[in-house]
Amino acid sequence: MNKLIIVKIGGNVIDDPDTLNGFLDDFAGLSEAKLLVHGGGKIAGEVAAALGVETRMVAGRRITSAAMLRVVTMVYGGLVNKQLVSGLQARDCNALGLSGADGNLIAARKRPAGEIDYGFAGDIEQVNAPVLLGLLEGGFVPVLAPLTHDRRGGLLNTNADTIAGAVAGAMSAFYRTTLLFCFEKPGVMRSGKTGAEVIPVLDLGRYQELKRSGDISGGMIPKLDNAFRALQDGVGEVRIGDAGSLLQAILTGRGGGTVLDL
Amino acid sequence: MNKLIIVKIGGNVIDDPDTLNGFLDDFAGLSEAKLLVHGGGKIAGEVAAALGVETRMVAGRRITSAAMLRVVTMVYGGLVNKQLVSGLQARDCNALGLSGADGNLIAARKRPAGEIDYGFAGDIEQVNAPVLLGLLEGGFVPVLAPLTHDRRGGLLNTNADTIAGAVAGAMSAFYRTTLLFCFEKPGVMRSGKTGAEVIPVLDLGRYQELKRSGDISGGMIPKLDNAFRALQDGVGEVRIGDAGSLLQAILTGRGGGTVLDL
Repeated sequence: MNKLIIVKIGGNVIDDPDTLNGFLDDFAGLSEAKLLVHGGGKIAGEVAAALGVETRMVAGRRITSAAMLRVVTMVYGGLVNKQLVSGLQARDCNALGLSGADGNLIAARKRPAGEIDYGFAGDIEQVNAPVLLGLLEGGFVPVLAPLTHDRRGGLLNTNADTIAGAVAGAMSAFYRTTLLFCFEKPGVMRSGKTGAEVIPVLDLGRYQELKRSGDISGGMIPKLDNAFRALQDGVGEVRIGDAGSLLQAILTGRGGGTVLDL
Repeated sequence: MNKLIIVKIGGNVIDDPDTLNGFLDDFAGLSEAKLLVHGGGKIAGEVAAALGVETRMVAGRRITSAAMLRVVTMVYGGLVNKQLVSGLQARDCNALGLSGADGNLIAARKRPAGEIDYGFAGDIEQVNAPVLLGLLEGGFVPVLAPLTHDRRGGLLNTNADTIAGAVAGAMSAFYRTTLLFCFEKPGVMRSGKTGAEVIPVLDLGRYQELKRSGDISGGMIPKLDNAFRALQDGVGEVRIGDAGSLLQAILTGRGGGTVLDL
């Protein structure tokens, strides 16, 4: 099996031009088959505010009104996606920008309104792995925006971490997959003798303990739940940390970030 | 050679939900290989106004400031493109939305500032016909937004009629191409005995005469110049008219709109 590297980036990479350029250099330099999943960054909130669309978040998740769905379709599907694609093309990386509607890549179901009504948020039903495989074998580098579709003409907003995990799981039938979750910290942190330090390897048992003790909390929990689920779905390797360390780990073979283990 | 139908739609189809739904039904129903090129519609102007970005047009062409480039990247590349793609996917048409940056599909050069500085407007240098051929042969229906790239990381705004003509010309090496330019009128019009009537066939000589006499003027001139250029570039058939008539002409084999002839 060939290797496939799936990288997820969020606002901390997208929002800063220098960080973004460094990331694009590193990513374009990966010699393996690769795929990029991006979030939205601050721009979605800024555009929403300028258009008078209220941003509502509950527990780190966006509530997607009809007006906000239009904003994220513009910002994620248009502005951010096309800027990443053109930036990669300038680096001779044959990027192809895609939403989940394109090629029927990711079908989802509007999340039923429960205690919280998330609005036009999509829970993934199916990743169309054969289509992605065909594009990868055709030499393209897919760049996925965090948008899915309901197969009935509706777009849905889906968390980029979730998309990265689901895509990595689905592609593990065809590739030895490595999934890199880039975020603002160098890895999953613990308090050490000399201050906060990166946990080099985190297994599921230890994660459960750290969750119970409160050492891991808040937005890290859905992120890590999602990352462990990817491992359970057959993803070969999952790392979490800052973009620079994670890509250097691949480029140089030296460790970076936190490696997750079942 | 197989047949390829290239359809260009603009605001009059995109802006009205009923017209758009009817168009998507007809387009999805075409049994031939097909490709859609879209313009922007009123939405770009509305979003620009809401964001406080000034819309400037000279002779029917948009002046693209840096702020306006962001708006059209959002609206053309994101909102309009993804709505068309998800609408086609709901009709079992395997649409794949693309800008000229995706897959290095359309490389362009920023138009040099002359008497008019068009800003971030791109003049097409190259259509990557092999990539489009691969996607068509892979069963995709490309949906092209009117955005190109300069190969150095910059996106550019390029007229959708121009993209449709250039793509049709480039694909004529591989297919018998039919190019349908949809606009708000049933065809190229002339004053007849009973009022305005459609010219069923317009050849280049007659077009030159009608231009000289002033019977054809304004925005029709770049549209028709572009359409005749496509014929000269090897496109098999070029028709201009309203979307309904043109697609019915293909679906039923009965005439619709104005057929251009060299």
